[in-house]
Parts: sequence; structure tokens; C-alpha cells
Amino acid sequence: MKVVTFGEIMLRLSPEGYNRLFQSDRMIATFGGAEANVAVSLASFGLDSGFVTKLPEGPTGDGAISALRAFGVDTGSIVRGGQRIGVYYMEKGASQRPSLCIYDRAHSSIAECSPEDFDWEEILGDACWFHFTGITPALSEQVERTLENALKTAKALGITVSCDINYRSKLWPRERASEVMTRLMEYVDVCIANEEDAADVFGIKANGSDASKGIVDSESYKEVAVELTKRFCLKYTAITLRTSKSANDNDWQAILYDGNAFYSSAKHSIHIVDRVGGGDSFGAGLIYGILSGKDPEGAVRFAAAASCLKQTIEGDFNRVTVQEVEKLVSGDGSGRIKR
Amino acid sequence: MKVVTFGEIMLRLSPEGYNRLFQSDRMIATFGGAEANVAVSLASFGLDSGFVTKLPEGPTGDGAISALRAFGVDTGSIVRGGQRIGVYYMEKGASQRPSLCIYDRAHSSIAECSPEDFDWEEILGDACWFHFTGITPALSEQVERTLENALKTAKALGITVSCDINYRSKLWPRERASEVMTRLMEYVDVCIANEEDAADVFGIKANGSDASKGIVDSESYKEVAVELTKRFCLKYTAITLRTSKSANDNDWQAILYDGNAFYSSAKHSIHIVDRVGGGDSFGAGLIYGILSGKDPEGAVRFAAAASCLKQTIEGDFNRVTVQEVEKLVSGDGSGRIKR
Amino acid sequence: MKVVTFGEIMLRLSPEGYNRLFQSDRMIATFGGAEANVAVSLASFGLDSGFVTKLPEGPTGDGAISALRAFGVDTGSIVRGGQRIGVYYMEKGASQRPSLCIYDRAHSSIAECSPEDFDWEEILGDACWFHFTGITPALSEQVERTLENALKTAKALGITVSCDINYRSKLWPRERASEVMTRLMEYVDVCIANEEDAADVFGIKANGSDASKGIVDSESYKEVAVELTKRFCLKYTAITLRTSKSANDNDWQAILYDGNAFYSSAKHSIHIVDRVGGGDSFGAGLIYGILSGKDPEGAVRFAAAASCLKQTIEGDFNRVTVQEVEKLVSGDGSGRIKR
Amino acid sequence: MKVVTFGEIMLRLSPEGYNRLFQSDRMIATFGGAEANVAVSLASFGLDSGFVTKLPEGPTGDGAISALRAFGVDTGSIVRGGQRIGVYYMEKGASQRPSLCIYDRAHSSIAECSPEDFDWEEILGDACWFHFTGITPALSEQVERTLENALKTAKALGITVSCDINYRSKLWPRERASEVMTRLMEYVDVCIANEEDAADVFGIKANGSDASKGIVDSESYKEVAVELTKRFCLKYTAITLRTSKSANDNDWQAILYDGNAFYSSAKHSIHIVDRVGGGDSFGAGLIYGILSGKDPEGAVRFAAAASCLKQTIEGDFNRVTVQEVEKLVSGDGSGRIKR
Amino acid sequence: MKVVTFGEIMLRLSPEGYNRLFQSDRMIATFGGAEANVAVSLASFGLDSGFVTKLPEGPTGDGAISALRAFGVDTGSIVRGGQRIGVYYMEKGASQRPSLCIYDRAHSSIAECSPEDFDWEEILGDACWFHFTGITPALSEQVERTLENALKTAKALGITVSCDINYRSKLWPRERASEVMTRLMEYVDVCIANEEDAADVFGIKANGSDASKGIVDSESYKEVAVELTKRFCLKYTAITLRTSKSANDNDWQAILYDGNAFYSSAKHSIHIVDRVGGGDSFGAGLIYGILSGKDPEGAVRFAAAASCLKQTIEGDFNRVTVQEVEKLVSGDGSGRIKR
Amino acid sequence: MKVVTFGEIMLRLSPEGYNRLFQSDRMIATFGGAEANVAVSLASFGLDSGFVTKLPEGPTGDGAISALRAFGVDTGSIVRGGQRIGVYYMEKGASQRPSLCIYDRAHSSIAECSPEDFDWEEILGDACWFHFTGITPALSEQVERTLENALKTAKALGITVSCDINYRSKLWPRERASEVMTRLMEYVDVCIANEEDAADVFGIKANGSDASKGIVDSESYKEVAVELTKRFCLKYTAITLRTSKSANDNDWQAILYDGNAFYSSAKHSIHIVDRVGGGDSFGAGLIYGILSGKDPEGAVRFAAAASCLKQTIEGDFNRVTVQEVEKLVSGDGSGRIKR
Repeated sequence: MKVVTFGEIMLRLSPEGYNRLFQSDRMIATFGGAEANVAVSLASFGLDSGFVTKLPEGPTGDGAISALRAFGVDTGSIVRGGQRIGVYYMEKGASQRPSLCIYDRAHSSIAECSPEDFDWEEILGDACWFHFTGITPALSEQVERTLENALKTAKALGITVSCDINYRSKLWPRERASEVMTRLMEYVDVCIANEEDAADVFGIKANGSDASKGIVDSESYKEVAVELTKRFCLKYTAITLRTSKSANDNDWQAILYDGNAFYSSAKHSIHIVDRVGGGDSFGAGLIYGILSGKDPEGAVRFAAAASCLKQTIEGDFNRVTVQEVEKLVSGDGSGRIKR
Repeated sequence: MKVVTFGEIMLRLSPEGYNRLFQSDRMIATFGGAEANVAVSLASFGLDSGFVTKLPEGPTGDGAISALRAFGVDTGSIVRGGQRIGVYYMEKGASQRPSLCIYDRAHSSIAECSPEDFDWEEILGDACWFHFTGITPALSEQVERTLENALKTAKALGITVSCDINYRSKLWPRERASEVMTRLMEYVDVCIANEEDAADVFGIKANGSDASKGIVDSESYKEVAVELTKRFCLKYTAITLRTSKSANDNDWQAILYDGNAFYSSAKHSIHIVDRVGGGDSFGAGLIYGILSGKDPEGAVRFAAAASCLKQTIEGDFNRVTVQEVEKLVSGDGSGRIKR
Repeated sequence: MKVVTFGEIMLRLSPEGYNRLFQSDRMIATFGGAEANVAVSLASFGLDSGFVTKLPEGPTGDGAISALRAFGVDTGSIVRGGQRIGVYYMEKGASQRPSLCIYDRAHSSIAECSPEDFDWEEILGDACWFHFTGITPALSEQVERTLENALKTAKALGITVSCDINYRSKLWPRERASEVMTRLMEYVDVCIANEEDAADVFGIKANGSDASKGIVDSESYKEVAVELTKRFCLKYTAITLRTSKSANDNDWQAILYDGNAFYSSAKHSIHIVDRVGGGDSFGAGLIYGILSGKDPEGAVRFAAAASCLKQTIEGDFNRVTVQEVEKLVSGDGSGRIKR
Repeated sequence: MKVVTFGEIMLRLSPEGYNRLFQSDRMIATFGGAEANVAVSLASFGLDSGFVTKLPEGPTGDGAISALRAFGVDTGSIVRGGQRIGVYYMEKGASQRPSLCIYDRAHSSIAECSPEDFDWEEILGDACWFHFTGITPALSEQVERTLENALKTAKALGITVSCDINYRSKLWPRERASEVMTRLMEYVDVCIANEEDAADVFGIKANGSDASKGIVDSESYKEVAVELTKRFCLKYTAITLRTSKSANDNDWQAILYDGNAFYSSAKHSIHIVDRVGGGDSFGAGLIYGILSGKDPEGAVRFAAAASCLKQTIEGDFNRVTVQEVEKLVSGDGSGRIKR
Repeated sequence: MKVVTFGEIMLRLSPEGYNRLFQSDRMIATFGGAEANVAVSLASFGLDSGFVTKLPEGPTGDGAISALRAFGVDTGSIVRGGQRIGVYYMEKGASQRPSLCIYDRAHSSIAECSPEDFDWEEILGDACWFHFTGITPALSEQVERTLENALKTAKALGITVSCDINYRSKLWPRERASEVMTRLMEYVDVCIANEEDAADVFGIKANGSDASKGIVDSESYKEVAVELTKRFCLKYTAITLRTSKSANDNDWQAILYDGNAFYSSAKHSIHIVDRVGGGDSFGAGLIYGILSGKDPEGAVRFAAAASCLKQTIEGDFNRVTVQEVEKLVSGDGSGRIKR
Repeated sequence: MKVVTFGEIMLRLSPEGYNRLFQSDRMIATFGGAEANVAVSLASFGLDSGFVTKLPEGPTGDGAISALRAFGVDTGSIVRGGQRIGVYYMEKGASQRPSLCIYDRAHSSIAECSPEDFDWEEILGDACWFHFTGITPALSEQVERTLENALKTAKALGITVSCDINYRSKLWPRERASEVMTRLMEYVDVCIANEEDAADVFGIKANGSDASKGIVDSESYKEVAVELTKRFCLKYTAITLRTSKSANDNDWQAILYDGNAFYSSAKHSIHIVDRVGGGDSFGAGLIYGILSGKDPEGAVRFAAAASCLKQTIEGDFNRVTVQEVEKLVSGDGSGRIKR
């Protein structure tokens, strides 16, 4: 019952509190990255979870590995070598001031890896699920090829594959994203998208919604889910819907389509602590929900609640237990103190 | 005009900001405890205030005493000895994530005290008021007996006695709480309860309210106040009513019953900084209000405003002056800067 | 195209987060002051900006100068000497607890300067705009005389003069403020006031509004703008309107009158990080708007948006770029993350 | 090639820098304990390392486990349950002011464990070495019995056993220590003692040395090593020798006796950052040295160098690599920067 | 047995660690001042200790009072009013870089007090000892007159008076210091000086020593002690001798003359944490030594040891117990950890 | 009298205090780089100083520019563009543990600059001195060519050129360094080398010294200076000599040769706070010494003292004034407090 994720883990540098970048000389240095965040969530939920990447020798690579191991993530398949760990600078927004995210990830060890670095038959030997996001193939052509190797192996081994589309316009243009992701989606069983991904990458738009204007209507995304499901023969398609009222206050909801019916989570009004990793924690929640035998409605509700809680936690990683998520699913979102 | 309180003061360990416990290696180490918080509030309001407990020799006990002395609390009756200071870990919640409170208070010096440690005739010699909460007798049987000695002495000396029911399910089961508290309430003149205490300990329920579902209706608590007053022949009964909309946003109000009429405070919508100690600061505000000669309405309004301000302050202690509380009582809750 | 501002820059001492003053031994030491804040904003917007004051020799004066230079403010006309730098203690409020501002600025180098310290013909030689606030003449009679010298020189050189009334009751009584400001307003082309200044200093009241009760109606301030414009023959009069719902949440809007018509900014609902410097950043935004050739509506919208963003930033200084302000002006206040 | 250690891991609370306890409200919260420190060192050296203890459910136990896992220590045999994690307060000394260590470890989950909690046949199934210190049996009688079970199993399985005498007068009196340790030493192959342990526990004194007076002569400890070896039929006996010139400056050396000859490490003059865990890192270095096939001289030199480096590192854990230790063994103690 | 001290307590602002002033925006804000430091030491030693000064209303004055009360110092005779609390900026030196101390104490509440503010008959009613330093009369003429009132009252009441000459060239010129101090010394029974004071203020030089060149010979100071004793009819004269090898390493010793014989403390080689308050802690140690009945040798040894320990502690205040000092007096300066 | 330096400025990430990299999540983020450090020193000494490099658009580049501007360095010739700012991780060593420096500077904006980015005729138009170090040409071939353009322009304009050899084995191999530096030395008037550079790059060895063994004899370096001077027709050759006793304690001295005679600085025994930038501050001190008209002995003494003080200061930059350096030159290295 092991879930393997593949991607990049970066050093994340954030100023304290609501400071702007370099406003003071104090920074919070943690680690994160879409697929690593999923791996940490799954390990926190008690699943057997492994993360695959390439990291440089020395303290920077060691630091990332320690951060993962602290949660019990299996780091045994991480390859060491290359020149550097990717870095990202993350400044927390407030009210009308948006969060700011500056990537310095080019030339990282994983971006410059070689497909030969990874023996997927061995890595996936004890896995039942493989997860990646649209960031992974965007890193470089080498990573794209490496990922395709992984996907082929996964299919050959009968492993379920999930993908979070996770479009990043700073990493690749829409055209290349569309072409590559269309090819990779062939291997995918479970697809996760946010309110903008399907339009950005596949041109599938939700009529009646405009996320940039704060109009996010869950009904209008049902057709997006249907279209994605049909186009890529998916088993499950989940769409997360964020309404950003301000940098501090967002509404958060998700829908899941299983080819037959729609299932909808509660709509959580979140007073945000750190929204980075919100989508990743949703993906992990969905994987956990399905693997732990929940029905579709239970799975999407668990995933949305996990993701809601993530956004109340500092850093990329979702530091919550299954019990804490279940409590929110059961409707207790009052934040009453426990003692 | 000295008010004496008796109970436990603990070392409180909290992560910085909204971090989860042990997310980083930095902790804020302060001191607090229900009765100590009342003593600090009263001293800040300018009353003569003394706190009685037992603390170990050495830096941990010294630290707690220094923290109290900094506010002018009389620590001269604190007994030194025993094995340890109680510790509690407090993680601040946010949005749907509740605050988390982990007690490690068993075997503390006060829990393992001996009734002979305290000479109540001397301790209460210059007191006009004695205050305790339901936490104190829950600490151990020795503390319960010690408290009963104190109460008997207080009655013999004609000292007013107040009690905040403060039920803690982690410390004792309802049955024992009910039995012990019923016995101790005989000595009590002024009783304070929150929206759950009366039901938890004495089975007196507010029809039409359900705090766990966020339904807290002040009207329905009037009968609770009447019933408490009757059952225990109380002079004043105050009930604080918290509606927890989220871990960040609570509504806060209180009612007071003097056997004849009901008095109600303003309802404060609080954007919370730290809610721990909210009830304690209400208790202190009520004692101050009564001792300073306010009428019942003035007293409950002062108490609720003091408590509202506490929840905008980090740590257990209510660091406000009478002037600051009066300003909020007078209706200025706009938070306009003063300059 | 250089803008010169004249006033005091102080050391600002603030506790971390929402701590009260001296609650812990950690303080954030930055620098700020109304006119210095304007100079920093203008430099951040890319204008040539100079700040004039007097600062003591040694590390305290050097620290203030470094803080200004870091933004590219020209500090070449700052005179060194005198006894001390002014200090102010700033405690951030929360919810019903107001922010607290304690000035210790008497006897500062600038307050005890001599008019001979400053050669305005040289200082203003390459300037096109001179800005001051009502705080400057309130510092001392020497500063008042120095300012008047500057204003006379500015007029002689044909330099535009702007003034933010900025009444501080702790610095001078209304009578003296009224008398002095009335005299100085003769030199002023552009006047900025907040919702209370015109009434406090010139007795010009907005019927139907009462800021202390949270009633701030933009319509009722139009007559105030007309009256100010008439009385002092102003080219532009801007009024900022703050509705303080709590220490955390304010509404913020501004109107501008050019002698003919009224122009109104958007009304920004701000979840406040630090409101100090909000008015200063408005002033800077207005100066930038006018100097960069915006029409009146564009200028007041830019100024209000700049000021809104300031209030999401820690410290006195507005650390934003023109691009960030323009983005908010264009309506994107959703705080969506950029990546 | 797995090394298993058994003992207690505690929450360590230290003030920042050279602050005294509770001088400020900021504390550094890490985890440590003699046997856990050994396990972390061994994992850092690349050995398969497991730590066995009992920890409470919830964040405090989770925190300790995360801290161990971050280094790759196998925590799979840690039992969860009981009431609390032990705490110790550690104040760093300076110059003539000694470090201060206050234990609050009574009633911890491990101290109150039951021998039935641990299935040693399974735990030690893949182990080649078992390590404990004299602190473990001092925790409680249950722990003593549990340890004896472990030792019997280790002997039955032919596993090498090492023991660091580690006498703590605050945990048990000399008489009980002597009686228990004499019994347990029967199972021990490799014994480690500091300059005071042998005298304190077994009454074996080094003539001509007096550690409390700063007279620590390596020659005089040879007879101690011989006597220990003879009395307990040891394979290796190592003695660490600390000359405390001040809280900041110590000399550090070790000798090793293999029944035939004496081997001596270099004498390191250490400018101390944190001396806690110095002995534990020596023990780990010795185990690593022996297991990695070094000759006795190489082993004791490696161990002393590892321990020297530990004392330049904050916290209980020795965060060094084999390469860093080898570099010091090879004589490069100049601290020249690497770039 | 109460000791009363009179002088100024200031807000002390220091950068963290070895940062220069304003190198980062983080500062440590504590309180201190020569006579307040003595009062804190004495309270820590268990004596009844009171501190007299004038402090402004509001948080700055409250902060200073809390800091004193935390140690149990009686603050009941502190007068409130005036404009400001004095501030001093303290940058810690290292190696060849000296510590830097910038005073901003002019116009403080105490400097601008009125002699009528203090009723010395009442203040000294229960005192047995009065202590001041040469800083107090240097603050202003009002303070000088207030001090003289106190001294006259002390003499009238038969109270022992001690004075630490504590010459500060930044506060007053030598001539005025000499004139005023000569007059005030008439009231003094116990005089404390450092290696430069007697020469600076009274022109009494130690032949053969030159502190600025690091030549400080205890023999040559004996004649200084004799001369001081004779000139001012002193009961005890103590001289502290600091040899500053670098900002990090100082030697520290003291001699005491009782009119008959010389007594000398141990010479402590100190690795300095914070040397501010070193002289003050010596004074407090001497007062404690005499009041607790030690013989002259015991008193000077206790005082020097107390002062040695102070210099290993951050901030102005000497946070040590009598037991810790006695341990160093007894010769244990090895800094061995206690556990 | 403007001095222009050309090279790279990087983001420097250091853990707090003596923590190892990623031991905690707190980092100190400052900026530094050999030539930038020289520029900052010179500006602090009051010279007109400009720094030339290429930095990316956005907050990372802005941060570096702000850091330079805070000291008054002219940043007007800095080109914006490219992909990233170089990063270096700096872990402070202690005792036998060396400092650790990990560069992540490949692909930085400056490394990937184009020679056309820089118009040296304009940049050097008002310069009298141009400085670079051996790190600059090692960055990339583009930078090497850009530097050569600068050097040719400098020669054409009659500008004095200084070079600090500053060999970094991690940046280029000895052979390429030797070839390139030999060519560039043709333009150099003043050469600075440390105790290893001349041997590493030009094969000029000091007989009788071996820095790696701590044997650094100033006499043996005189021949190195003579040989460098002859080979490259230098006006001045300075050699800095570091004896690293431990990571905390170094001896530091320098010699200067002017083609005729040798001049030697004092030998400073430094208790190190941060040794990074020690060589750069020496170079700046030498340039200042020569430009301010000191004789060769005065210049080398000033340079060595400036560099000694740098090593007592956190970060890359030398935050000292000319007065502070002169005080140490005059022999006052006792670190006595100033007040």
C-alpha cells in the first residue's frame, strides 16, 4: 500500500510574519514542493509514502531529506548528485497585497537529472499508487522523459496513477504544457485540477465563472469535470474551487466526478495562515480517501477538509492527523479549544 | 481589601505565531493558570492581590514567582518544595483548526502538597475576598482538602468567596466533579460559569442552546443562572457566553443575576489573539467591579470588557489597566490609534 | 523632478507581533516619521526624493540615514548635530484594543535645530515639489521658523508645496495649531487632510459624520474640501476617510477636489497589518500621481491604493512598487498568489 | 549491522544564548537523552541505528520521534502510551558560571513502562550491538527489569553489549547504582566511563587525579581501566577525561584499554559551544570505530574527535559526518574555512 | 534590615549577539542603571531592598517597575511623573572592538525631578543602609539636591551610607565631579571605586599602574585606598581592579581596606558575556557581605565573586543566588555542569 | 576620488549563532561578495564608492541594491536582468569545527552577463581607482571578458588598478587561474594576496611556512612579495598572514612592499565573530590608506586594523568608521567599554 510521488523539493525562504522579502535579515528556511508535500501528507495520514527526486550532496540535500524523514517519508530512492537544490522565495500576502512567489529552480539537481538515474522497476516495486503534478514535466526535458519512464512502468505494474495538473505559467508556455500534458494524461487514472488549470492547459472552460474576478461557481465546473473525464478516460476527476476574497480570506470547496455522479465537499471559509500547499494537501487527502476505502463523497469531503486545515498551518507541509481531518469533516469547524 | 486566590500556576510552552507544536525549535515560555491569572488581573487593576500555591525550589519555581511579582501580586504565602512545576503545551488554533492544550500537571508540587503546608488563618488574615476555580479541587485529594480548609477559614472570617466552575474533563470525571463541587459550593457567594459548566458539572442545561453547534442564546441561560442561584444560595451568578465562529473569531457576552434581576454586558465580536485566560479575566473583572462599588450592570459590563481585551493579548495574563477597560465599556471598541 | 520633504525621523520601537510594550524583551527597531515616510514612498516609486532633517552624530543618526538610503532617498542635506534622535514606542492593537503610540521626541536634534542649520536655496535648488505635514511646525518654534524659511524659498523658486495637516493633539493645542497652520497654509498648493484634521485645526466640520462613532460619510466631506479649498486658495484638496471597524479591520477611501469637481477613490476594506504611515503613503501617492501626469481621478485612485497596500506592510515605510499599486488600482484586490 | 539503544528521550528546554532560565520568554525546545544521542550519532555516521523507548501519544511523543527520524534513526520499536515525556531544563554556563541542568523526568512514559511493553526478541532480531547507559536502569525499577530482559536477550542472541556508566547522583544513590550496575555489568563487553564514574559507582579511584580540582591525569586512569576490565571481564574499556578549565574551555582526551595495551586519543582543547552529549558522542564514535573495523587506536581517536566536534555544536545531538570526524582525526583542527 | 538605593533606571536597548547597533531590526529591551542594579542584586541575595527614583506614567515607567518587582525589589517609593524614561544604547564589543554605550538620559523624569517629590524621612524610615553612586548627583542639580536631602536624613537616622564613585565623563566634567563628590563624601561610610575613579575625581593616582595600558597592579592601589580612607574618614574602602585583555577577556580582582589592614579577593579571569553592571554587582556583594556578618576578607571575596558571575550574565542585572556566589568563593570556578 | 569595484554580490544565508545549516528553520539573510565588501568598506570610510555588477529584476536584486545603498555605495551602474542572484550558505565554525561555505552561484545574472551590458567609459568616467579580485574572472568567460574591457578602459583613463588574488579552488582550476590571472595582472598596480594565493595561482611559495599546519612566518613571505612585485611590475604588494589557531582564534598580520622596503602591521590576536570578508576589509583599508595620503607603514597598519575589526563583526560587511580603525592602530586593542 505504498504511494510513490516524483518531483522537486526546494528550499523555501520566507520572511517572518507579514514582512516583505528582505525587509529584515531574518528568514524562515523550510522545504517544500508539490509532490513532496503530497508525500508528507500521506505519511502523516499513516500511509507508506515514498518521495523520489535528485538532490545535491552536502548540507542542502541533507536538509531536504531530513525534513522529509521527520514525517516518516521513505527517502531511500532519492538520488544524490548534481549542482544545486532549487530555491523559492515566498512572501506572504495580506488583505489586498498578494503573496509573492519567486522561483530560482533552474539547473537544480532534479532539473538536470538523467533518466538513467532512476530504476523505476525497483522504485515502484512495492507501490500501489504513483502521483505526480504538472510541475514535474515542466522542469526540463530530462525530467519529462524520466517521468514518462515512471508512468510506463507504473502502467506495466498495474499501479494507479494520479496527476494534479498544477499549471505554472512561469515554468512553461501553455502550448508546450498542453502538448506534453495531453500525452501524459494517457497514463492517468485520477486527475485533480484547480479552478484555472483545465482552461489554461486544455482549453476547457467553465462557463459562468471567472476566477480572476472572484466568480467561482461550483455548478459551472461540473461540465469541466465531465469533459476532462471523457477526454482522458479518467476514473475520478476532482476540481478544487478557490474564491479569493482577499489574501487573508478565501472560500474553498471541491467537487469530484466518478463518471456517473458528482460529489461535493463542504464549502470552507478559511482565514488563511499559509495557502501554499493547499492543492497538494487536497490531492493527498483524495488519495488517502480512496485508498482507505471511503466512498466518493467521503473522499472528496476528507480531501477538502484536509486542505482547509493545511491553509491554517505555516509552511508547505500539512501537519495534521487523520483524526483532526475527520473532526472537521464531521462538521466541527468552530475552532473551540480542546482541554 | 486584599483578594486571595488559590490554585496552580504552570509553565506554559507555546510555539511562535501559528506554528504547530514542535514545528520549529522556538517556544514561548510563560506562566499561567486560572487562579494565578485572576490574581494578576486584580493586581493590574490596582487591588491588593495575593496568590497561594506550592512551587518547587530552584529556577522553575523562581520563574513563576517572578512572573507574578512583576505585576505586583503578593507571593509571600507561596510554599516552596515538592518535585516539579506543572507544564502545559498550548498551540494556537486558526480558522477551522482548534487550539490545542496538552496538560502535564500531574505530580506537581501543588498537586502533591499537604494540607499542613498552608496556615489559612494567617494567609487570609488581611483578606476580604477568596477566589478559586473548579480546577483547584480537581488537582488531587490533598488540594481538595487544602481548599476546603481555606473555605472554612474564609467563612469563619466572614470573607466573600467566589468560584469559577471551570470544568476540565481531562482532570476529573463529571461524577466526581459534581459531588465535590456541590459540597464546595456551600461556601460560595459569587459563582461564575461558562456556557457549558453548569450542564457538565450540575446537569443544569440551557434549553435552546448548544454551544458545540455554535448556538448560544443568552436568554436560555437566564434559567441556568436562576437555578444555580437557588440551588447554592448564591449572591451573584455570572455566566459567560462564547460563540465560537472560528478559532479566530468569537462572540463574547455575559449575564449576571443577583437574585432579583438580570444584567447583561455588551456582546463583543472578538478577532482573537489568544483566548486562554478569557474566563479568568472575566472573573477578575467581576470581582473588581463588585469591590470597587459598581452596580451589577456596571460590574458585568466591566468584566466582559476586561475579558474581551484579554483575548486580544498574548499569554494567559490580562495586561490591561482599569482605564483601558473603562474605555471599552464606554463604547469605544473601534480600535482607533491613540496619538 | 525632485521632491523634498522636511520633518523628523524617529527611532520606532515596537514589540513583536501583538505583544504589549515590554511584554517580552524583544523589540523591532525601525525608523519612521510622517515626512520621511513620504520621501521613502516617492523613492520607491522611482522619483528623485530628498529628506531634510537634523540628526545626532553617531550610530543613532547613522541608523536613520542608512534606513533612508536603503530606499534611495537623498540624505545629503541632512544636518548632523544636536543631542538625540526622537523615539516613539508603537504597540500594535488588535480587535477592540487600540494601537498605542508613545512619543519621546522632545529635545531631539531637529526640535532643537537652528534655522541657520539649513540653506534652503541650496537644498531646494533642484526641487520641483516641497512637502511637509502639520507635525513639522508642531515640533518647536525653531522648526516652525525653519519651515517658514523653506516655504518662502519654495515660493520664491516656484516650487509646488503640499501639506498634510496631520494634527497631533499630543504635540500642540488646537489654538496654536490653528494659528500657525493658518499662516503656513498660505504657501500651500495641495492640501491633504484626514477625516478629523479639518475640524480639529480649522473648525471645518463634516455634517453627518462622526469618526469617533465610526460614521464616516464621504458625501459629507465634500463640503469640507470645498471650504478648505476656498479658504486657502488651494489647487487640490484631498481628504482620506478611515472607518475603523476594529483595530484589525478598517475601510479606507479618499476624495479629491480640484476646485471644480470631486474625484473619489475605490473604498478599500483592509485587514490591517500596520496602519501607521497610511496617511503618509496616501500623500506620496498623490504627489506621484500628479507628477507622473495622471488625471485627478487617476491620482486619487493611485494614492488610495498605495495607502491601502501600506496598511498591509509592517513598519512606517510603504515598501511597494508602482506596478503593485497600479495592479490594485486596476481592480485586482483579491490577493491571489502570483506564481 | 544494526545498533539498538534503549533509554529515555526528553524534551530539552534551553534559553537562547547565555541567558539564564526564564530570563526571557524565548526557549529553544529540542530533544535529547544519552542513548538517543548515541542512536542519532550512529545514524549520522551511516550505520543502521534504532532507538527503543516509550513515549506518550500526541504531539510531545510525535515531536521526539520526528526529531529522531530526521536523522534516519529507526523509531519503529518505540512503544506509545503512558502519561508524559520527560523534560529537562538546560542553562548554558559561561566562564565561572557552570551549566545548570534540571531534570523533570519522573513519571515519564518510559519510567512507568511495563517490561511487557517490549518484545526484545523481535526488537533485537536484526541487531549486532546493544547499547545502554547507567541512566537507563536509574529511571525506575520497571525500566531496570526491562533493561535486564534486553540484556539477557542480547546475550542469548550473541549481540555485543556496550555500557556507558554515566552516573547521575540526582537519579539514584551510589549504593543502589553500585549494586545494580555491578549486576548489569555481567552482560557488558565494552565499557565507557568518564573521569568520575568508576569512583562514584564502583569505588575505583585514579590516584593522583582530582577532577573537581581540575587535575585529570591520563596516566592515573590507566589503572582504573585495568581494574574495570578485570572486575567485569570486559573486552574494551574506554575512559574519557575532561579537564574543565572554565565553562567555556575544556580539555578532552580519552584512553582505551583492550586487555593488553593502552591507546590514547589526541588531547583536544575545546572552546565549547554545548558540552551536553559529549560523552554520548564518544560512545557512538567508539561503537562506529569498532564496527567499521578500525584498530583500537583508530577507534579511540575517532571517538574522541567525534566527541570534540559535538561540543562545538548546539543541542544534544552530534550533527557531524564521518568525513568531518576523520578530518579532525587526521590532525586538521585549525578551523580554517572551507571554500 | 532594608537597603535603599537612589538613582536612575533606564531602558537599555541592545542588538542581539555581537551585532552592531541597527545592524538588524531586532533589539533586546531591558532595564538597568547603577543603583537599580545594586537593588536587584540585594533582593536576589534575599535582603529587603528598595529602589527610589522618578519614572513617567504609562508603559515605559510601568515596564521599569515590573522589571524591578520581578526580583522582589520594593518599588513603593518610586514617584511617577515627568516626561520620559532615560534610554541607553548598548552594543557589545568583541576582541579588539570595544563595547559602545550611548546615553540618551537628559530630561528624564528623575533628572527633572523636584527635591519635594521625595519624603526621605518616610522612605528611609525602615532602612539600615543607603547606597548611591557618583552617577546620581551627575544627573542634574535637582537630583544632586535631592540626594543631599537623602544623605542628611540618612545621617540623622544613623543609617550606613555607601557610595560607588562611578565617574562618567560624559555626564559631568572632572572639576564639577570633584567638587560635588568631595562634599557628598562627608556622608559616606563605605566607598567603592574602580581602578580609574579615584584619579579621575579626586586626583589620587596609583603609581605604577596605567589602566589604559592594561597595567593594573593591586599593590599600587593600596595607597589609593589608604588615601581615600584618610581623606574622607571612611570605614571601608574597596577598589575593583579590571585588566581588560580584550573585550572578551578581562581579569577582575578587588581589595578592601578597613583602616587597619588590606583584604584581597581572588583574581578571576573572566570570559565575558556582558560586563555592564560588574561594578554594581560588586557593590551589592560588599553590602551583602557586611550586612550578613562576614569578616572583611569574606566580604571582599564574596563581592568579587558575585561580580565575576555578573559578567557571565546578559543584561545589567546580576541574576545569581547567594549559593552560587558562595560556590565560586569556595574555589569552584571550573564551570563543571551540575546534574 | 571615486573607487569603482566590479564583481558579484550574493545572498548569504547563515544559521543563527553556531547552529549548523538547517539545524533550525531560522536563517540570517544578508548580502555579500568580495568586491561588494570592498565597496561597502570604502563608503563607510567616507570615500566615494561605486559597485558594478548585474542583478536580476525583482525583490532579490532590489534587496542586494538596498543593502549596498544603506552604506551609501553608488549602485547607479548596476545592470538589471538575467535569471538569478547567486546564493551562498555560510555556517560559522567553532573551535575545531571549521566554517562551511557552500556556493550556489552558477548561472547568476552576473555570471551570464554580456560584455555589452557595461559601458566602462561612462562607468569609470569619474573614477580614480578600480578594484577587482580573482573571483571576478573566475565567474565565467563573459565576466572575464567584461573585466578585461574594464581594465583596458581603466588603463586608458590612467586609473589606478588593484587586485586581490583571492583564489577559490571551487571556482576554477589552478591552471586556468594561473593563465588568466597572469594576463590580467598586467593591468594591476596594487596587488593583495593572502598566505596561500601566490603559491596557488603563481607557484610562488614561502619557504619555511605552511599555512595548513599553522606555520605562517612573516619573514618568509617577504620573498613572495618581492617576486610578485618583480614579475608583475607592481607599485605595491601586500600579503595578509592568517594563523588559524582554531575557528575561534586567529592571528592576523600583514606586510606591504613598495619595491624598496617592507612595512609590517601589528599582529592582532583575534577572538573571531565572523571571519568572512577579512581579506576584503584589508583591501579596502589599503586603498583608503593610500588614497588618504598615509605613508606605506600607515597604510598597512590601517588596513590590518580595519580587517581585524571586521572579524569581530557579523556578516560580510565591515561596519566600522575611520575613527574606530585609527583607535586600534594607535594601540588601543583592550576593548575597554566607552562611556
